[in-house]
Amino acid sequence: MEINKNYLNLEASYLFSTIAKKVNEYSEQHPDKNIIRLGIGDVTLPLCKAVVDAMKTAVEEMGVQETFRGYGPEQGYDFLKSAIKDYYGERNVNLEPDEIFISDGAKSDLGNILDILGTNNTVMVQDPVYPVYVDTNIMAGRKIVYSDCTEENGFLSGVNDIKNEKVDIIYLCSPNNPTGAVYSREQLKEWVDYALKNNSLILFDSAYEAFVSDESLPRSIYEIEGAKNCAIEFCSFSKTAGFTGTRCGYTIVPASLVYDNTHLNKLWLRRQTTKFNGVPYIVQRGAAAVFTQEGQNEIKANINYYKENAKIITDTLDKLGIWYTGGKNSPYIWLKCPMGMTSWEFFDYLLNEFQIVGTPGSGFGKNGEGYFRLTSFGSREKTIEAMERLIKLGVTQ
Amino acid sequence: MEINKNYLNLEASYLFSTIAKKVNEYSEQHPDKNIIRLGIGDVTLPLCKAVVDAMKTAVEEMGVQETFRGYGPEQGYDFLKSAIKDYYGERNVNLEPDEIFISDGAKSDLGNILDILGTNNTVMVQDPVYPVYVDTNIMAGRKIVYSDCTEENGFLSGVNDIKNEKVDIIYLCSPNNPTGAVYSREQLKEWVDYALKNNSLILFDSAYEAFVSDESLPRSIYEIEGAKNCAIEFCSFSKTAGFTGTRCGYTIVPASLVYDNTHLNKLWLRRQTTKFNGVPYIVQRGAAAVFTQEGQNEIKANINYYKENAKIITDTLDKLGIWYTGGKNSPYIWLKCPMGMTSWEFFDYLLNEFQIVGTPGSGFGKNGEGYFRLTSFGSREKTIEAMERLIKLGVTQ
Repeated sequence: MEINKNYLNLEASYLFSTIAKKVNEYSEQHPDKNIIRLGIGDVTLPLCKAVVDAMKTAVEEMGVQETFRGYGPEQGYDFLKSAIKDYYGERNVNLEPDEIFISDGAKSDLGNILDILGTNNTVMVQDPVYPVYVDTNIMAGRKIVYSDCTEENGFLSGVNDIKNEKVDIIYLCSPNNPTGAVYSREQLKEWVDYALKNNSLILFDSAYEAFVSDESLPRSIYEIEGAKNCAIEFCSFSKTAGFTGTRCGYTIVPASLVYDNTHLNKLWLRRQTTKFNGVPYIVQRGAAAVFTQEGQNEIKANINYYKENAKIITDTLDKLGIWYTGGKNSPYIWLKCPMGMTSWEFFDYLLNEFQIVGTPGSGFGKNGEGYFRLTSFGSREKTIEAMERLIKLGVTQ
Repeated sequence: MEINKNYLNLEASYLFSTIAKKVNEYSEQHPDKNIIRLGIGDVTLPLCKAVVDAMKTAVEEMGVQETFRGYGPEQGYDFLKSAIKDYYGERNVNLEPDEIFISDGAKSDLGNILDILGTNNTVMVQDPVYPVYVDTNIMAGRKIVYSDCTEENGFLSGVNDIKNEKVDIIYLCSPNNPTGAVYSREQLKEWVDYALKNNSLILFDSAYEAFVSDESLPRSIYEIEGAKNCAIEFCSFSKTAGFTGTRCGYTIVPASLVYDNTHLNKLWLRRQTTKFNGVPYIVQRGAAAVFTQEGQNEIKANINYYKENAKIITDTLDKLGIWYTGGKNSPYIWLKCPMGMTSWEFFDYLLNEFQIVGTPGSGFGKNGEGYFRLTSFGSREKTIEAMERLIKLGVTQ
């Protein structure tokens, strides 16, 4: 029996374990110091009341013969698909229920979608990058091309950044993890036009779409003409509604996506019905409650809380004259390390001098060197205190 | 962009859609007839009280800041892994928590495990077969060898049934879906010895283990000496505790499994941390409640209800002199169609003469021709009525 030897090409990631080690060491040596963690990529506010109520009712239904639910449709219940259809409809994106697949999260489907795509395809990811895009393709042995995101292009690479390379599968994440940068309609249109011209497929990760408040910015790739012929979109309730531990997302595979004379929608349906049994009924009821009026009000209050944290951070960076992207339409703030420091030098500096923990940009790829990620998922109080420390001690670019 | 062309080799399955079509047609033509469905592979009893209570508490925790849970460990919470470790311990199978991976169901992991295995491996499945084993390997382009399960070997193929063929990956399901047949320790030992000798890997599906009441029969492959060096086990709460719509299972990848000088446990951990984000906290709390004293009492009552249904069916078949496997340590009863009928002839006969719906064995492979599957997941009342109809009209072998 042979293993899948592509796995041997994976690089071990020590980013978060190194961070934890350094923080622990500092903490042991300075037990009196109050460390503030702004590196966290997880939500901290609890589930909203509408979601909790819906799930409690669903749990009760599962305990009663008449309302018990066994196997559900692998692609999700109609009540949830219909709510998502309406959500897209508000932005004039018209989807059919069969184009919507309920998943246990964007991460799962971003990995699993590769099942239906050939291994000879060349894959484009951006650098800096969410590591899942890279590792899932290494596991399948695909060739990976990196497109550079830098200060010059606002950490949003364009079609010109891949020069003459022809790429088959294109990962785009907007608002971006880790940089918080958001593509404009015009920029996304370039990628859509490239994909249509080159028979490429865009895998669009819109997990952070709910943080976009600038109405001129697209929240779905399907707001761009032609995208339904060249893009799959992955979204999640994780950051939208605090579902990181509750697990629900959705994937849009338009009926009009055809490659090799084959409808990707049918291939994905076959993949899901064969290797997946759907998301728990209870969780789907919770997710559907996100789209009620009560649910929308409650999750928007939570998102605004995080966005206010982000504003406190970006206001401070503005005051200090530190360059950054993100923070305005994203929970992530990606800043240029001051005084020419490398990412890890700045990490140590922030930890030792200010007792603030963030994430070194170099952990996301070579273009992340010299940059640093802060997140807005902490508490208001801690975020304010961290920024007061920076101001008081006068870090500047 | 190229699709994964292996998908084009998949055969469409019309088994359940054909059944539905025939039943609908009959029903329209005979609106007065009372149809009894004994083809169902889904549980019908609601979740037990211990599970419902635990999930309600967990939902409440998720709504409160202090007890809210974000991302959990991809491989599952310690509280659930520890309960599973103890469950195996009762049968003297000693597992380490790191060898236990919580999943959203056996079907998902049975498909996903193939990610870490090479595509050049030859796969053995039994015929009749749970179609997922076949389709997931066709998707990856692996060569499939069928081993014949027939009346002669009690629908449990042995090492001799694959003759001199060397197979790398061996699927075994015991108690079996669809036949209900259960391997003895001696029979399983033969497969373990074969795997150890040939460097093969056994994928052991124990989803129906909770239905085994004969204590001489193994419920886990790790009850067999040597299995920790050649087998991965997949189990599920679906049939054990009625979780078909709640979604939780577990996969055991022993630390001692080494192929190509590589620990499969480490590969699987890498796969799961990359492509999966864990099972909902709420669901894991429900699953852990299955292992409490209250939970065990309640789920055993439910399993006994189904097993009593099975006994009503097998007693009837005994009375009629109809040959069958299963039913004693399994929710499935696999019977030989009487009067030399084919599977579909018997389906039509049962539907038209007795208004009973079952599943034609030929839908599970060529060796299923002439056989038929009944299940014990219906209600007591309906099961009794169906058997009374058979007795009254005197079907015999």
